[in-house]
Amino acid sequence: MNNENSMIQKQLNHRTIREFKNEGITTEVFEQLIEVARRTPTANGMQASTIIRVTDPEKKKEIAAVCKQEYVARAPELLIFVADQYRNYKIAEGKDCNEPSARDMDRFFSAFTDACLTAQNIVNAAESIDLGVVFLGSVLNDAEKIIEILDLPELTMPVVGLGLGYPNQNPQLKPRMNMDLRLFENTYKQFDDYMEEVKEYDQEMQTYYDLRNANKRVDCFSDQVVTKLKNLIPKRSEMLNIMRKQGFDLNLK
Amino acid sequence: MNNENSMIQKQLNHRTIREFKNEGITTEVFEQLIEVARRTPTANGMQASTIIRVTDPEKKKEIAAVCKQEYVARAPELLIFVADQYRNYKIAEGKDCNEPSARDMDRFFSAFTDACLTAQNIVNAAESIDLGVVFLGSVLNDAEKIIEILDLPELTMPVVGLGLGYPNQNPQLKPRMNMDLRLFENTYKQFDDYMEEVKEYDQEMQTYYDLRNANKRVDCFSDQVVTKLKNLIPKRSEMLNIMRKQGFDLNLK
Repeated sequence: MNNENSMIQKQLNHRTIREFKNEGITTEVFEQLIEVARRTPTANGMQASTIIRVTDPEKKKEIAAVCKQEYVARAPELLIFVADQYRNYKIAEGKDCNEPSARDMDRFFSAFTDACLTAQNIVNAAESIDLGVVFLGSVLNDAEKIIEILDLPELTMPVVGLGLGYPNQNPQLKPRMNMDLRLFENTYKQFDDYMEEVKEYDQEMQTYYDLRNANKRVDCFSDQVVTKLKNLIPKRSEMLNIMRKQGFDLNLK
Repeated sequence: MNNENSMIQKQLNHRTIREFKNEGITTEVFEQLIEVARRTPTANGMQASTIIRVTDPEKKKEIAAVCKQEYVARAPELLIFVADQYRNYKIAEGKDCNEPSARDMDRFFSAFTDACLTAQNIVNAAESIDLGVVFLGSVLNDAEKIIEILDLPELTMPVVGLGLGYPNQNPQLKPRMNMDLRLFENTYKQFDDYMEEVKEYDQEMQTYYDLRNANKRVDCFSDQVVTKLKNLIPKRSEMLNIMRKQGFDLNLK
């Protein structure tokens, strides 16, 4: 039925693009993406996220170092999405309101969510006009370093990055888990034997070639999960400590 | 230039829809939305989010009570997006891997981000086929109650809800802040006088009529910020305590 709907087709064909043509995006296209960011759904209309557009080649290299991915420095556009309660805190201050609730976990998670929704909304806009994107969760490998590079004030936190440009590669569609494992009705469904449930997916994953390691088969999914758990990047665990340094009140009991 | 691009036009016209036609969405449409969820970008390919489709009228009412918004119970589709490290924890266990890092804040924030991206991706798919949506950040008004209603296991957390259906209202486009306040280049820009910066926006907001309070002008933006800070819902501040109860390790120093 909606096979003709180009947006959904683009969404179903989403691939991560890490190599881009040596061609920037025009001001007109950039402004359109930012207008999409502006119209993104936001908790209580508070618009508690900020985008830092990184154009300085030195800063791009520094961020690529945090990401441990050199291609990040070469992305034609590099955007960092920031959870931002600083702006509204300052606006409230202008109204002689100094509520400590500006530092609250409620406000933090609303801002974090705003930043994520904005990033995905830009991704959909970008892909609809044939741009390619790479999400950079890796900016959190060292959130404090990102805070320093971008000079982020208190009550802000980096959330995710995005590299954008015109694709210069055509990766294979990456196999995904069956949604029977991820969509439940009314109640969370637990399975007796998860290994049995992912058996087929494990096999399918091994038919996938990751362009980052050309000609080398990837691990099956369950092995990827184990590898991920065994190779945690220590500073990624420090989110709450960094949030506290950024002036957020963790409200711990 | 991209005035012809229907996706971006839909994104620029996004409005929250709270009242829906008395007409469900077909299985075919629903499955297509779920396929979009499946193809959503996900940190390290870990697919650490889960969707609970709430069809039980009693559960819908209970969730509407948490949201303090009765229309939630009437939404033709109600989806709750869940940050989910439980599934991969069980998969790793099946591989005799019991890494404590499954409980780590790194894993939590990756899962939280996955859930947000999935929700926004579904929103864009839905709006591209003329469905309307309402985001329900209000499910976090009482996250423990949501956990109980949906029987969520350890290492999961509700993130956001979504009501969907065919629109039965045509709200005004809500004014948004100028992106000069939200988009910066290379470095976070602080302003000397935030009240001066939002003056125009404050005025523009007062031309907006919220359908929830027909015929009543809304407050200017800066007053909305103050009202929001002064009316915090106490259980929303408890996120970290609830995450800890759900088995996450906060890694506090």
